Amino acid sequence: MINITLPDGAVRQYESGVTALDIARSISEGLARKVLAAKVNGEVWDATRPITGDATLKLVTWDDSEGKSTFWHSSAHLMAEAVESMFPGVKFWVGPPLDNGFYYDMDLGDRKMSDEDLQVLEKKMNELAKKNSAYIRKEIPKAEAIGYFTEKGDEYKLDLLQNLEDGKITFYSQGNFTDLCRGPHIPNTSFIKAIKLTNIAGAYWKGDEKNKQLTRVYGITFPNQKELDEYLLMLEEAKKRDHRKLGKELSIFTMDDEVGQGLVLWMPNGTIIIEELEKLAKETEAAAGYKRVVTPHIAKESLYLTSGHLPYYKESMYPPMELDGTKYYLKAMNCPHHHKIFAAEHKSYKDLPLRLAEYGTCYRYEQSGELFGLMRVRCLHMNDAHIYCTKEQFAEEFKAVNEMYLKYFKIFGVDKFVMRLSLHDPAKLGQKYVDEPELWKETEEMVRAVLIDTGTPFVEVQDEAAFYGPKIDVQIWSIIGREFTLATNQVDFAQGRRFKLEFTNKDNAPETPLIIHRAPLGTHERFIGFLLEHYAGKFPVWLAPLQAKILPISDKFIPYCNEVRAKLVKAGVRVEIDERSEKIGKKIREAELSRVPYMLVVGEKEMNESMLSVRRQGKGDTGMQPVLEFINMIVDEIEERKG
Amino acid sequence: MINITLPDGAVRQYESGVTALDIARSISEGLARKVLAAKVNGEVWDATRPITGDATLKLVTWDDSEGKSTFWHSSAHLMAEAVESMFPGVKFWVGPPLDNGFYYDMDLGDRKMSDEDLQVLEKKMNELAKKNSAYIRKEIPKAEAIGYFTEKGDEYKLDLLQNLEDGKITFYSQGNFTDLCRGPHIPNTSFIKAIKLTNIAGAYWKGDEKNKQLTRVYGITFPNQKELDEYLLMLEEAKKRDHRKLGKELSIFTMDDEVGQGLVLWMPNGTIIIEELEKLAKETEAAAGYKRVVTPHIAKESLYLTSGHLPYYKESMYPPMELDGTKYYLKAMNCPHHHKIFAAEHKSYKDLPLRLAEYGTCYRYEQSGELFGLMRVRCLHMNDAHIYCTKEQFAEEFKAVNEMYLKYFKIFGVDKFVMRLSLHDPAKLGQKYVDEPELWKETEEMVRAVLIDTGTPFVEVQDEAAFYGPKIDVQIWSIIGREFTLATNQVDFAQGRRFKLEFTNKDNAPETPLIIHRAPLGTHERFIGFLLEHYAGKFPVWLAPLQAKILPISDKFIPYCNEVRAKLVKAGVRVEIDERSEKIGKKIREAELSRVPYMLVVGEKEMNESMLSVRRQGKGDTGMQPVLEFINMIVDEIEERKG
Repeated sequence: MINITLPDGAVRQYESGVTALDIARSISEGLARKVLAAKVNGEVWDATRPITGDATLKLVTWDDSEGKSTFWHSSAHLMAEAVESMFPGVKFWVGPPLDNGFYYDMDLGDRKMSDEDLQVLEKKMNELAKKNSAYIRKEIPKAEAIGYFTEKGDEYKLDLLQNLEDGKITFYSQGNFTDLCRGPHIPNTSFIKAIKLTNIAGAYWKGDEKNKQLTRVYGITFPNQKELDEYLLMLEEAKKRDHRKLGKELSIFTMDDEVGQGLVLWMPNGTIIIEELEKLAKETEAAAGYKRVVTPHIAKESLYLTSGHLPYYKESMYPPMELDGTKYYLKAMNCPHHHKIFAAEHKSYKDLPLRLAEYGTCYRYEQSGELFGLMRVRCLHMNDAHIYCTKEQFAEEFKAVNEMYLKYFKIFGVDKFVMRLSLHDPAKLGQKYVDEPELWKETEEMVRAVLIDTGTPFVEVQDEAAFYGPKIDVQIWSIIGREFTLATNQVDFAQGRRFKLEFTNKDNAPETPLIIHRAPLGTHERFIGFLLEHYAGKFPVWLAPLQAKILPISDKFIPYCNEVRAKLVKAGVRVEIDERSEKIGKKIREAELSRVPYMLVVGEKEMNESMLSVRRQGKGDTGMQPVLEFINMIVDEIEERKG
Repeated sequence: MINITLPDGAVRQYESGVTALDIARSISEGLARKVLAAKVNGEVWDATRPITGDATLKLVTWDDSEGKSTFWHSSAHLMAEAVESMFPGVKFWVGPPLDNGFYYDMDLGDRKMSDEDLQVLEKKMNELAKKNSAYIRKEIPKAEAIGYFTEKGDEYKLDLLQNLEDGKITFYSQGNFTDLCRGPHIPNTSFIKAIKLTNIAGAYWKGDEKNKQLTRVYGITFPNQKELDEYLLMLEEAKKRDHRKLGKELSIFTMDDEVGQGLVLWMPNGTIIIEELEKLAKETEAAAGYKRVVTPHIAKESLYLTSGHLPYYKESMYPPMELDGTKYYLKAMNCPHHHKIFAAEHKSYKDLPLRLAEYGTCYRYEQSGELFGLMRVRCLHMNDAHIYCTKEQFAEEFKAVNEMYLKYFKIFGVDKFVMRLSLHDPAKLGQKYVDEPELWKETEEMVRAVLIDTGTPFVEVQDEAAFYGPKIDVQIWSIIGREFTLATNQVDFAQGRRFKLEFTNKDNAPETPLIIHRAPLGTHERFIGFLLEHYAGKFPVWLAPLQAKILPISDKFIPYCNEVRAKLVKAGVRVEIDERSEKIGKKIREAELSRVPYMLVVGEKEMNESMLSVRRQGKGDTGMQPVLEFINMIVDEIEERKG
């Protein structure tokens, strides 16, 4: 008999050779029907793979990210089976799951795949799925595997085999398809109930343009049709709200080849949004007792050796500038600079907590293939701050940061969010993580306790902490249901010691502060990208680059419009007059299209009675209003940051 | 006879061989007594050197910067004569004039010079000066010069001779001293009436620490004792107001070896000043119709090839970061990035003038020996903007920029300033300056006309323009009479074409805009350095990091102090309570020392009557005031930015 420990700590005994699926069935048939895979001793396995020793077990379903990955990975195999039936002799390279769906790269020889073929393939996949074929795992000696693919004449899988170790090679088969594959897979094809192949693209073998171009087919699948329909609807809406498209239409930002990829040039409209966000952050942080600092964008190599960013983080940094025997690096984080400000003057416990904030600009060298609009860039304006505190102050400070997140979510109408508590992996102490087992335990418990105490929804993830301590990543969903990883709240017990930061404690002895790294609004780049999609470019008034547009029905009302404008400007409203000699219908249409929140139509009646005809973006005509009443209303809307 | 053209355009005829001094005498004896040198065809000459052809002539006096240079250069020779009499066999390296005074590097052999020796030397110099010895220029063949110094065993002058061309070598003698020297010099030693030797320092020969260390003696001289006294007084005051000393005492900024030289870390107090200055600039610029942008701190090499900064400005830039075959440079100016934003969308004449503003951070690699506190740094936060306009709009825009300067001067209590109009040198077209003689003429005249029309005090300087057009540098004087070159206002007719910037003009044809580069508040670094000295750290309330400090006489008044603080915070005042259990006298003394503008003393009477005893920094006790009255007063002082 073996002992199986379940996530709630309960231990059950089973015969050796039992599978996760067996165990699920022993609990309930309903549960078993949902099991896609299992986490055995922390590793994701086939639910049908025999367990032969004591183990911890977590059943994996569609609700887990590992469940979706496994599902999509198996779907890639199903697609490959369909492709092989349609294009005999096709050779496959790799077919991984993605954040949303999967792809498979393939060599079709002289043949081409068309968009029409995708529909035929989808149909074929549906047929194959209904056959309820099991995914069967088989361990294969390396020689045998080489023999198999040599006979098949498949140079791609032979290439993959070169780097695999004998004794660790597995084949997976379902229906008529067999693939070299590490797995794991779902129990059988019948789980795959809704299929959409989305795209065909070219992809160079191994990403090298000197190699042959393969055909890459993208797809996504779901356990039911409803989820697929919702997904496709969300995609369509997301396309309309694409932040790159809106960013251009609304003159928010631009990029330029001569400046460089991933380096955003913020145009006047985008800069207004940046400044409103910074104003919000500064007000919020001032009220929370933060102090602001300004630091340079570069530092000498030695700073990053002290911090440990070099050599560990080097890949993500721009290369050094070398002069007079000194190497300078663009900063990828603001923390080392802030630590130097902490260290510049002697600190006592009375100076703590010290909260240093800066909208610091960092540079990270993302691979050019990974750059994407504002979502993945090389220059990041970060809503950064570092809180230096004692152990006793930690819980209060960490809680206050989480509360700040919630405050922001409310302002921006973010209803769905989850905090991911990323923990270390004890097996990787000294490599990926600072080798301080006690401090890891202590700080992870402190963070977990804060989350539980405050009733914050959170999930725990193993092996995703920062190298200096546990962290919380915040995932939020835009109004159309797309997920964004935005912000971070991290505990750091290591940097303080590396930088020899100290304060004199109550016993007059030197002590190292704990450090909290936090960035609730993430970076301007990603946050404004998120907001563009979230609001479909229809920003709330306080964020809108242009808040009101005055639309005279004819030229003779322009003097009155100028009076109104002067009053609005004085009240701090961003306003323009459309002075063109165009029909009012056209002026309104274009103002609607430019997403200005308020359109103020002015004709004879409005002028004579000191009124404005007010149109609200998306709501249409809301009637006539006295000028002062409108001003009071819009100023209140701006000051209260109404959504 | 030769024709001599005077600065006012008048042409006079003289015998060939006439000297500038002769010509001065022919005008007035009084004038002649003031002549230190002369500018002959744009080159500074001895006033006693014969002129043998037609020439333009400008007499140079103490009021000209060239006059002071010549005076101090001659003073260095006078000091050398005194040193030689005191330390026979001394060998001299170089002895140039400085912005204030002069130095001479010398090899004293085994001997040392002491501070006491300086006083003896001063006395000797005074004696020698009174001898009224003429500075005599003599042209010497190279062989003869080499013979002279070989015999003297002077390896330093022999080293200098190596790089000099035969036929262009001159000796200068006065009294018993002869030196290899290019000149020019003042007519005779009697002009030097007040002498102060200020410092002895070590200096490696040729600045190379592998070479022998020479003795460097610094001094300064004046044409009368009064000016020397004033200068020494100013020095003493400047020492007290040293921005590096005050910057540390008031926790304004710090630097750190691991970050790098010349890279300022702005501490919370300094950041408050930065944010107040930026607020002022943003308000002022918004009212003047500027739009704000945000751009990255790096760009690809090709951008700086287009702009022409590479290769011309390369020496002042950090070296490139090279990755994936692309070179990235830290920006030394914001203009190229702003031009790219101009170019991002099509422009019509209706879009002009377009004024793009950014407090942009630039990086310039100043030599480490030239770095000096906040005055010369490597990271500069620049109050930058670029105005794109038509030729017709130019005068109005340029005038508006100059008016913005005057507005700022008033706010900061800068009473003395002068605008230096820097012009090109026609002889250097195509090398130092863009080869567009007509455009130079046109724009220089446009700029001059604006200055004259607006009655702005200005001086003209040849050969100091930017490579793309004429510029105005603004020199201001701090309250203690020190001069700062702060800001700039430049016309640019070249960059627009290099970047192919265009707008569609009224005739529907493409046209290149003129560009104005301007930075009225210069950089945060230099401006805050200036302000520290100007205010001696006693900032006006609106700029002061801490605006009021509440000083309870004993602990029992703390609850009342907290109420007062809450009211002040709500009114936007930066305020703290000194809660320590110290005597009120000590609290006041320390608050005075920290330069906080208002100290609010609270005791029994104040608490019972809802009052505050108000002390004003530098003025002492100003009596009791009701709390609300004080709040209204301080808020008004802040909002009006009273000086």
